[in-house]
Amino acid sequence: MDCKKALEACHGNEEAAVDHLRKQGISTAAKKAARVTSEGSVASYIHAGGKIGVLVEVNCESDFVARTDDFKDLIKDIAMHIAAADPKFVRKEDVTPEAYEREKEIYRAQAAATGKPAPVVEKIVEGKMAKFYEEVCLIEQPFIKDQNISVGQLIATKVGKLGENIAVRRFARFKVGDPNVTIAATTFQEQQPKE
Amino acid sequence: MDCKKALEACHGNEEAAVDHLRKQGISTAAKKAARVTSEGSVASYIHAGGKIGVLVEVNCESDFVARTDDFKDLIKDIAMHIAAADPKFVRKEDVTPEAYEREKEIYRAQAAATGKPAPVVEKIVEGKMAKFYEEVCLIEQPFIKDQNISVGQLIATKVGKLGENIAVRRFARFKVGDPNVTIAATTFQEQQPKE
Repeated sequence: MDCKKALEACHGNEEAAVDHLRKQGISTAAKKAARVTSEGSVASYIHAGGKIGVLVEVNCESDFVARTDDFKDLIKDIAMHIAAADPKFVRKEDVTPEAYEREKEIYRAQAAATGKPAPVVEKIVEGKMAKFYEEVCLIEQPFIKDQNISVGQLIATKVGKLGENIAVRRFARFKVGDPNVTIAATTFQEQQPKE
Repeated sequence: MDCKKALEACHGNEEAAVDHLRKQGISTAAKKAARVTSEGSVASYIHAGGKIGVLVEVNCESDFVARTDDFKDLIKDIAMHIAAADPKFVRKEDVTPEAYEREKEIYRAQAAATGKPAPVVEKIVEGKMAKFYEEVCLIEQPFIKDQNISVGQLIATKVGKLGENIAVRRFARFKVGDPNVTIAATTFQEQQPKE
């Protein structure tokens, strides 16, 4: 109830509403309201003697499943995959329009530099963009330990086996001395109220 | 040389310059130019059976030092500390003015709600803000394994022992089911050209 009032007072801005509640001293309730009820596990993978490190959170529906060897193996495989394949996003849906357009612009300029006619350039760009998701999205990438399946398909087989939904929530990848860091998270869509 | 031209063409915007170079196909050189020459190691710490995970990069000057047990122990201690103490920033200098003002605003509202006179309220806010850095900055926090020293002092003793500068570069902290993630990095200051 406090949360609802705070949200209304802050015109639906969640972060501002939490501040609003904290100002009133109702921070504990605010924290609870902000918590997503999901189970799962965080795993890490350190590669090449500490030169590359990955942290990944994978969610499932119950702590029981989170503690199974099947789930633990899966999350370990995913962390190792991220270290090797260097994805930039979790899913297709998480690619920002800016990142998409920026990549397209680069491909277009590269293709244009070949001096080929405009329709051919567009064909080349289209071809490259089709490959783009497969290259940058974890879920679309071919699994490093079995290139015949994607990481998404690897997860799907575990979902079938364990009987619970499983989703990669977020990951971070650091490489020593590399100023670029990958921090990726699934973007949650707003729940539509049912009619 | 290509990098310099690209930077000029992009009015000193590094990211735009890298795009500019990639468009010309000189991506490899651009990547090298963007690389910071620092050694060190990435370590992780998984707490509470996979419920909290930390990834941290600590830099030193040579790979020789990065491979010593002293350095490895230090980075493991720092990762464990981050899991327990939940810092939000690396150093004081990394606290954004927005984060600082936001926190101050909350303390001010809390103090004002007590109904005390304005000068007293300001005193309370000042007192709380003095504690703020110690609470949220990794380097300022009391080290969890020895509360008599700060994490910064822990690092300083290792610098003395190993004879190389050591700096925490960045860290990530995930907690299962918690939508808030801490991603912190040192903000590098522009090198001023010497007169």
